Amino acid sequence: MASSPTLKDVARLAGVHPGTASRALNPDAQQGVSARTVEAVLKAAQQLGYSPDPIARSLRTQRSNIVGLLVPDLTNPLFPPIARGAEDALRERGYTTLIANTDNDENLERQLFKAMRGRRVDGFLIATARRHDPLIESASSQGVPLVQINRTTDSTRIPAVLGDDAGGVAAAVQHLVSLGHSRIGHLSGPPAFSTGYERMRAFLDTCRRMGLAVPAESVVECSAYSIEAGTEAMRVLLRQAPSLTAVVAGNDLIALGAVDALAAAGLKVPDDVSVVGFNDMPFADRMQPPLTTIAVPQYHIGVEAARMLLERLQNPTAPPKRLLLPSELVLRKSTAPPPQR
Amino acid sequence: MASSPTLKDVARLAGVHPGTASRALNPDAQQGVSARTVEAVLKAAQQLGYSPDPIARSLRTQRSNIVGLLVPDLTNPLFPPIARGAEDALRERGYTTLIANTDNDENLERQLFKAMRGRRVDGFLIATARRHDPLIESASSQGVPLVQINRTTDSTRIPAVLGDDAGGVAAAVQHLVSLGHSRIGHLSGPPAFSTGYERMRAFLDTCRRMGLAVPAESVVECSAYSIEAGTEAMRVLLRQAPSLTAVVAGNDLIALGAVDALAAAGLKVPDDVSVVGFNDMPFADRMQPPLTTIAVPQYHIGVEAARMLLERLQNPTAPPKRLLLPSELVLRKSTAPPPQR
Repeated sequence: MASSPTLKDVARLAGVHPGTASRALNPDAQQGVSARTVEAVLKAAQQLGYSPDPIARSLRTQRSNIVGLLVPDLTNPLFPPIARGAEDALRERGYTTLIANTDNDENLERQLFKAMRGRRVDGFLIATARRHDPLIESASSQGVPLVQINRTTDSTRIPAVLGDDAGGVAAAVQHLVSLGHSRIGHLSGPPAFSTGYERMRAFLDTCRRMGLAVPAESVVECSAYSIEAGTEAMRVLLRQAPSLTAVVAGNDLIALGAVDALAAAGLKVPDDVSVVGFNDMPFADRMQPPLTTIAVPQYHIGVEAARMLLERLQNPTAPPKRLLLPSELVLRKSTAPPPQR
Repeated sequence: MASSPTLKDVARLAGVHPGTASRALNPDAQQGVSARTVEAVLKAAQQLGYSPDPIARSLRTQRSNIVGLLVPDLTNPLFPPIARGAEDALRERGYTTLIANTDNDENLERQLFKAMRGRRVDGFLIATARRHDPLIESASSQGVPLVQINRTTDSTRIPAVLGDDAGGVAAAVQHLVSLGHSRIGHLSGPPAFSTGYERMRAFLDTCRRMGLAVPAESVVECSAYSIEAGTEAMRVLLRQAPSLTAVVAGNDLIALGAVDALAAAGLKVPDDVSVVGFNDMPFADRMQPPLTTIAVPQYHIGVEAARMLLERLQNPTAPPKRLLLPSELVLRKSTAPPPQR
């Protein structure tokens, strides 16, 4: 490659002192520089194709400008848009995102977290929280900058950006009741995750508020957020509570698994049984049938989590915030009035 | 967190010298150590929860144990399984994978590549190659260890792991001909990418070999591998060549876009027009209609690319290899005999 342009070259082209150019190029130090100068320096940098040497910069700033993003499974379609949102927002501020999959395996999580810390990442975005999570709790209490995404520990002292689980499930139940359903089951996500636990609680609360009986056998916990776990749990639900006419699934993958199990039992969605998913993951609108589901603003959850982490890197002792983004019922073809019997 | 166990602790528990324990724990230095000793040391390390400090280790070995993975777009469902395969194979050997999205933007690619090099990644897995790609060509000629995934530059001197584009498209055309189609169009991927170019060449070659005329207006180039680009290109194809009864799409996203454009024109898939995709991306079997497509072993492409890179890190001057993994026609519901007119 041709020899790289230096900070001095940029300063010369912009007609400023190298120290000024350096501050203008550093989002954390721009305050002392006029907007016009920042613009001139950025233009010069772009023109020359200048990018600061990250190692040299990290030695100066004690920052690596790397953020670690832990996701439970990139092949779950929910996570790529969240990761993209986070990555885009971080890149805007000069940060590179190191993404790693943990497979929801606690040992692997610990190992990856340690490896990333060893490589001096500045902070973490963590989409893998368990409600009881010694790794996150101890890292947080040691002051490691981190923001939880989508799921949380039970501690409210740790910052988080979340979709509205409870509001979403309430909307799903209300929709089914408005169609005429009264025997509604729930295939819950794993209760060790806040999403599984909160959605199940919201399901039970909403049913109670609406005067629906929920016998214990009409709720089945899934072992994972996967199609396979959804199929397995729906088989159990069909045995335990065969008279149900509708199911609220813990997420869209569980909903797809439920549709498979219903088809295998000779039941049609939505003619015989209605199914509601959660997340509105990519392609949910193109499934057979297109899924009625709860949309959460995936990309924006990623963006907001990145912004919250950047804020914490600036101001590590600020009180932890918890940001809830709205969820929304999306009506498609997997729900209909209950069959006339 | 509790104070971490050291290499000395591991050596003591295993009953060996710390130098021996160190070699036993380093996959690149295990040759001089007996299998029994390696096993004893690994067991001791696991028992104590020991993991080597990566910065200290990288100072000793001059390696960071980080591999950079550049993908064009993680929200394209093709890439998560490839990334997972690569990550799993690398993790097995103690490497962490740094994933970054480039949005197929050359400037962003250059910036991310430079940032990763600055952070001393040991090598690159690159799924973003253009046929003419100064970045990859110059990095490769400078001896940066890298392996291309899925796409390549036109140079055969750069290692790569690929699906069989030509064989897959030939199988798609033969399938359509066997159903009775003779007026077949092609929505090609961008010809600046080897996948777009090779699949289009294979389409034209196979048609010629099978005695089918392919007028110029029955091939339309898509501006991207996206649903939107597929819709746009199918609209053009319908205007230019309205008598086509089948379309081979450059990939599954383009195929989904084509299905949308056909529906908007009042045409049914497969009753009026058959559509074949490429990749068998996750959920292709659940679309409306379920896509007939060409399956490539996505996860294994990732695994093999990681292995090839590890091999190059061991032996940087070995001649570059190009590994082709087989592709396979998957019959579903988007293809049928042409309509009787």
